[in-house]
Amino acid sequence: MISKEQITADYQSIQVEICTGLEQMDGKGRFEQELWEREGGGGGRTRIMQNGNVIEKGGVNFSAVHGHLPEALRKALKVEHDDFFATGVSIVMHPNHPLVPIIHMNIRYFELPSSFTGGSEPVRWFGGGIDVTPHYIFDDDARFFHSNLKKACDAYDPGYYQRFKEWADSYFFIKHRNETRGIGGIFYDRLTPNEAQNWNDVFEFTKTIGRSFLPIYTELVSRNRNKPFTNDQQQWQYLRRSRYAEFNLVYDAGTKFGLETNGRIESILMSMPPTAKWIYDFKPTAGSEEERTLNLLKKGVNWAG
Amino acid sequence: MISKEQITADYQSIQVEICTGLEQMDGKGRFEQELWEREGGGGGRTRIMQNGNVIEKGGVNFSAVHGHLPEALRKALKVEHDDFFATGVSIVMHPNHPLVPIIHMNIRYFELPSSFTGGSEPVRWFGGGIDVTPHYIFDDDARFFHSNLKKACDAYDPGYYQRFKEWADSYFFIKHRNETRGIGGIFYDRLTPNEAQNWNDVFEFTKTIGRSFLPIYTELVSRNRNKPFTNDQQQWQYLRRSRYAEFNLVYDAGTKFGLETNGRIESILMSMPPTAKWIYDFKPTAGSEEERTLNLLKKGVNWAG
Repeated sequence: MISKEQITADYQSIQVEICTGLEQMDGKGRFEQELWEREGGGGGRTRIMQNGNVIEKGGVNFSAVHGHLPEALRKALKVEHDDFFATGVSIVMHPNHPLVPIIHMNIRYFELPSSFTGGSEPVRWFGGGIDVTPHYIFDDDARFFHSNLKKACDAYDPGYYQRFKEWADSYFFIKHRNETRGIGGIFYDRLTPNEAQNWNDVFEFTKTIGRSFLPIYTELVSRNRNKPFTNDQQQWQYLRRSRYAEFNLVYDAGTKFGLETNGRIESILMSMPPTAKWIYDFKPTAGSEEERTLNLLKKGVNWAG
Repeated sequence: MISKEQITADYQSIQVEICTGLEQMDGKGRFEQELWEREGGGGGRTRIMQNGNVIEKGGVNFSAVHGHLPEALRKALKVEHDDFFATGVSIVMHPNHPLVPIIHMNIRYFELPSSFTGGSEPVRWFGGGIDVTPHYIFDDDARFFHSNLKKACDAYDPGYYQRFKEWADSYFFIKHRNETRGIGGIFYDRLTPNEAQNWNDVFEFTKTIGRSFLPIYTELVSRNRNKPFTNDQQQWQYLRRSRYAEFNLVYDAGTKFGLETNGRIESILMSMPPTAKWIYDFKPTAGSEEERTLNLLKKGVNWAG
């Protein structure tokens, strides 16, 4: 059985690998690190890059916290026990280039002690996901992204991709705009081994997802970072970022949980865009690339082929 | 007894007066109007000004809606009856000048039919408020604002100002930042006549508050609009606007209600700032005007003297 110490160590390694890779990719931006401690137990390592060549603002956060389960989470999880352990890596990247997409990735592990059920095993599960929010949707990029996710999923369970892709469509949805946040990706929660798996398999799956981030994003960035863009495209990027802000503040479960439980605010809100704009009732020109992108922000688009 | 038709008509007049006055004040910006209908009954008149001389983005919205009470509101109000009538005027102004404050004003009336209680009178109340969010707090302006509100309140009930000022401090509070949104103002809800009043008095009070908006904001704008400002001050303005966005999306009851009940999204989110910025863990220089403003964003500051 995998220990929480092993999961913590491997997730920390993934954070380090990703930061190193993103610095190489960006060529200028450097991550600044802040260590923080949680009053109730544990802490984290927040790493932020600002004003890079491509990454205008991005965070790669690791945390491992334990202790008394906050009441809000007890209610959300419908459990009465109040000891917990949670660790994870969480990433959001806002590029300065409107043709490079925003990306988000999260892998996490949650555990309640065995005394909770009276058995010998702790109650535990994995969660996570990865999703891309292009300011402009390029079909080739969307297909590349989803087919890579499908490949990663298929190696562990032939049903994962379809299930987790639909889950992402539902989760990354801005209800009041009737728009998906972007082209989706995968999202999963309370994941435990299927009949053919053990806990190590599920753990390996989450590490595969974590390690898929860097090659995927590096490819999406390198395909688009040298394309010229106009001021109008940059303005459109700022408008799309305000939707991202709306999603994170109104719907994102991690953000809401963090705000309600006095989490470390700057680490939680590292996901917010560096510059965002709200224009009243902005409508893109008929037939424009902006309109085409809007029309693709819906559930159920089959990008993996 | 005041009819809902009378309240509707007077609130509409207040919308018109304010728009006329704001156009005169701004000198360039003009309100564009959109009429909209609510599927369940009633509708509204949204008026938006963008890119004026001083007003970068502002809305003066009137609505009068009726019909079936949405479940979310039934729960919030703890009522079981599902017929309702609601009318109100709601304003948010985002100036382009960092030394001119953001302002918000709302007056509203809510009614459930008499059948609800079995009596001959409908169940009804007024709500509303006005609050100012300076990017830089100027003590003289804060005192001017609060003493004008106190004067307006004192003419109706000697206890109103203190009670409603404390209510505003509690309501316009960004809990996850441990900051008030700005210098507060007044906020009241479920307001009904006190022992010495009739319904007309309460209605007149709300109209006085509605009509206090224009002279107050005109004065605050004219005091500051011609002051020179730096790029750093403009950047600080954008950072403060992101706090405003956080408040509106995370806490504001009207916004949350609107999003949950499929309200007219563009009218609800007209309150969002035109440009906002999030910088990771930004801290103003020790001893700066920015730091001084931050230190004043707390509950219980006595501005009215």
